[in-house]
Amino acid sequence: MGGGEAKKSGGNPGKSGRGGKKKEVKKETGLGLTNKKDENFGEWYSEVVVNGEMIEYYDISGCYILRPWAMTIWEIMQKFFDAEIKKMKIKNCYFPLFVSPTVLQKEKDHIEGFAPEVAWVTKSGESDLEVPIAIRPTSETVMYPYYSKWIRGHRDLPLKLNQWCNVVRWEFSHPTPFIRSREFLWQEGHTAFATKEEADTEVLEILELYRRIYEEFLAIPVIKGKKSELEKFAGGYYTTSVEAFIPNTGRGIQGATSHCLGQNFAKMFEINFENEKGEKAMVWQNSWAYSSRTIGVMIMVHGDDKGLVLPPRVASVQVIVVPVPYKDADMQGIFDACNATVDTLCAAGIRAEADLRDNYSPGWKYSHWEMKGVPLRIEIGPKDFANNQVRAVRRDNVAKTDIPRAELVEKVNQILEDIQQSLFDAAKKKRDDCMHIARTWEEFVEALGQKKMILAPWCDEEEVEKDVKARTKGEMGAAKTLCSPFEQPELPEGTKCFASGKPATKWSYWGRSY
Amino acid sequence: MGGGEAKKSGGNPGKSGRGGKKKEVKKETGLGLTNKKDENFGEWYSEVVVNGEMIEYYDISGCYILRPWAMTIWEIMQKFFDAEIKKMKIKNCYFPLFVSPTVLQKEKDHIEGFAPEVAWVTKSGESDLEVPIAIRPTSETVMYPYYSKWIRGHRDLPLKLNQWCNVVRWEFSHPTPFIRSREFLWQEGHTAFATKEEADTEVLEILELYRRIYEEFLAIPVIKGKKSELEKFAGGYYTTSVEAFIPNTGRGIQGATSHCLGQNFAKMFEINFENEKGEKAMVWQNSWAYSSRTIGVMIMVHGDDKGLVLPPRVASVQVIVVPVPYKDADMQGIFDACNATVDTLCAAGIRAEADLRDNYSPGWKYSHWEMKGVPLRIEIGPKDFANNQVRAVRRDNVAKTDIPRAELVEKVNQILEDIQQSLFDAAKKKRDDCMHIARTWEEFVEALGQKKMILAPWCDEEEVEKDVKARTKGEMGAAKTLCSPFEQPELPEGTKCFASGKPATKWSYWGRSY
Repeated sequence: MGGGEAKKSGGNPGKSGRGGKKKEVKKETGLGLTNKKDENFGEWYSEVVVNGEMIEYYDISGCYILRPWAMTIWEIMQKFFDAEIKKMKIKNCYFPLFVSPTVLQKEKDHIEGFAPEVAWVTKSGESDLEVPIAIRPTSETVMYPYYSKWIRGHRDLPLKLNQWCNVVRWEFSHPTPFIRSREFLWQEGHTAFATKEEADTEVLEILELYRRIYEEFLAIPVIKGKKSELEKFAGGYYTTSVEAFIPNTGRGIQGATSHCLGQNFAKMFEINFENEKGEKAMVWQNSWAYSSRTIGVMIMVHGDDKGLVLPPRVASVQVIVVPVPYKDADMQGIFDACNATVDTLCAAGIRAEADLRDNYSPGWKYSHWEMKGVPLRIEIGPKDFANNQVRAVRRDNVAKTDIPRAELVEKVNQILEDIQQSLFDAAKKKRDDCMHIARTWEEFVEALGQKKMILAPWCDEEEVEKDVKARTKGEMGAAKTLCSPFEQPELPEGTKCFASGKPATKWSYWGRSY
Repeated sequence: MGGGEAKKSGGNPGKSGRGGKKKEVKKETGLGLTNKKDENFGEWYSEVVVNGEMIEYYDISGCYILRPWAMTIWEIMQKFFDAEIKKMKIKNCYFPLFVSPTVLQKEKDHIEGFAPEVAWVTKSGESDLEVPIAIRPTSETVMYPYYSKWIRGHRDLPLKLNQWCNVVRWEFSHPTPFIRSREFLWQEGHTAFATKEEADTEVLEILELYRRIYEEFLAIPVIKGKKSELEKFAGGYYTTSVEAFIPNTGRGIQGATSHCLGQNFAKMFEINFENEKGEKAMVWQNSWAYSSRTIGVMIMVHGDDKGLVLPPRVASVQVIVVPVPYKDADMQGIFDACNATVDTLCAAGIRAEADLRDNYSPGWKYSHWEMKGVPLRIEIGPKDFANNQVRAVRRDNVAKTDIPRAELVEKVNQILEDIQQSLFDAAKKKRDDCMHIARTWEEFVEALGQKKMILAPWCDEEEVEKDVKARTKGEMGAAKTLCSPFEQPELPEGTKCFASGKPATKWSYWGRSY
């Protein structure tokens, strides 16, 4: 058994608290969750993040404890992304958590976007600070005064920095673990270039890495596109994003963003350089980030009524090996086979553990590891042992395979790859089933009522988007643009905007969102 | 040239600012620093951290920007330590930055130790918070309410968690980059065990990792020992530490600490469990941490009047390759040789870069990379090129070696290992020269005046330590205990305490400290 984490759930696979009747019922039925994903999605989510041991609720609202089961996923993504940006010659740094108010307020649009959510430190010990100090909601204003200092000539460019850190946004809307929290972990990249072309290119290179995190690691299909003027980053030039969709709530969710800041911040922070001709010029800047929100999207998309479903590439335990004791069986032989199986898998780079605890039944263990979303379970009972084979059971579709011990690594690798692909395919099918093309206001409203993600021809006018928001305002929240996809369907001349009737200039995704 | 970082220093190797006369003088003399380590240590340090591009000063006092040159060192240590604790089955997690006041104040001694330095958030946006919220100065009180929740039975133990994060201590004493800053990066491990024995064992296992970070990575000799009651962690049971020494200031510096918390926090936070006999018992806890202070100690110990001196194991660039052009030389051939050299070294796992910039002279580049502390410089001029060799110049002692291209990897590895060892040996010799044994108060005072680290027989009474502090108070700061070393010299019966004349019970290191 590979560590103390599993043990922490103690006597009950489905519940972090103990005692009470609910526990007994759940134990008897073998069910770990009291809520069903399709019936009470919100409650299901709150329950599965806790029972899957990803999150513990914290005594300050909107703050959550990331337990090792979640942290490992974060670390796996971080390892990938960090290596990729290092290949791009982006370097890591660390800027302070605190910002002075004068600097924070330097870029007007930017601060207007963030001001209501900024947390302020006003005291240390018993003393009031002379000037209140802000906690970074993002680090543009923290960093750029120093970019101005460091960048003088064209040889100082490009300047490409990234940091892995925590940020704080004291939001008052409904907090949700991973998805909307007052403190979260992220990486933020901040780059400066001599030319717009270089900046444009990097925006898309980074966006592609974000797509890969979602599609290749988290097995979640995303749409790459450009945000509307209303939805772009406060103070930026344009914003690109990868957009995911949660079918159960019919809401889009911004997965990660790669912004071109243009020269707006450069102007405010005087980030100038002497170009090759000896002329004074202003830099072009980007900033880009993905956060621990990624993990929440993964849980929402793949989880089911038995608990988490982790894609193999990000699962800290990819294979859990469980001995199945029978009366009169050679238990030592079975235990040894379990350990040997783990050793063989680990030696091949597969993250495997055995659950050899003697105070839980195999059935309990199955439920426990299903709740935690381990992609593949290997059972070894007397018959398997006698036949020199193991039984593999997939978490995603319960498919069972008997694997001869000699083919263990090859077959397990195959199955894990297949699970990764199946999860993506299933998520994509579900997402695609929720997509709807609307050409008129009536079609739009009907599709919105059906919780669709709507692709509609649009005139790209800010007033029209505001108008759509106002007209769809209701209990469920208003519809807004999610993005204008880079992959545009054909837009025949004469196509009208679904909302304004004016000539449409692009296709855009619309929907409710997180 | 392997990245943009080097370019950021722009036209001047010795100064992050530009222009002015100082620049001209420094360029002519080839000197990069205006202060000398042995003459104005404090000013030298402030200058070298900036000119070596480790730190940029920030507009909030006590906060510093960690530039990539410093961040890489942090990451190299982190990679080592993180892998080691994972072998010990310690798992990473992330707890919130914020603590509510009731929880923070639960352990009385603990909060007394930290209260004056706690930063408080009292506002978000324009609104006052209902209750002020503290920023973690350390996370015992953040975490332990949840340890109480997670730990029920002996099977939930040990619980071993670690987090990499930032903490804030709003100190008002003289802030110093890396050494004493209001926000810093660290790891903090928090573990709970069923027995004192397990806790005791882990305290020392972790301390050994801290020793390895200092001695094997940073090439700094440290002394392992136990802190006095007065100097131990607030609220803990006992504290062990690795203690380094800065000869130039004659000050000891606590390098990292591994605390046994005993059952003090367990009592306050009710961290109980049912043991194997079915009885209720209290856990034994440890906490341990090292911080970005490590980097400051490294700079203080190894740096010289030409700038930083980085030990090879932590240097982000271990070898810098510089072409040396001459009139009529085959410059393309030399450039190709430089690139080939870098490729060969990198392929062998050596971190090498070439500085092929055409707007700087070789002399300028030498000064620049010396300032940044790169352990080994490789020069390739026409003669080297013709002889199919390179010239290697050590940063630490300027020793020069001509290396045939065929032996490149072998020789460079050898030299780097030798530099690593030489730095440690030199630092150890300097440190040892500052050690002094004092058996009487007179000897003690004299040695303190000579900025020594003093090993003295002590009665181990708190009142006596307080008395020593009071009697040595002065401009330079009072002397206190650094640690009682685990390696104790013989203490013949009848040996008296240097300060009180009472029977001595142990040897202890004393001195001024950071």
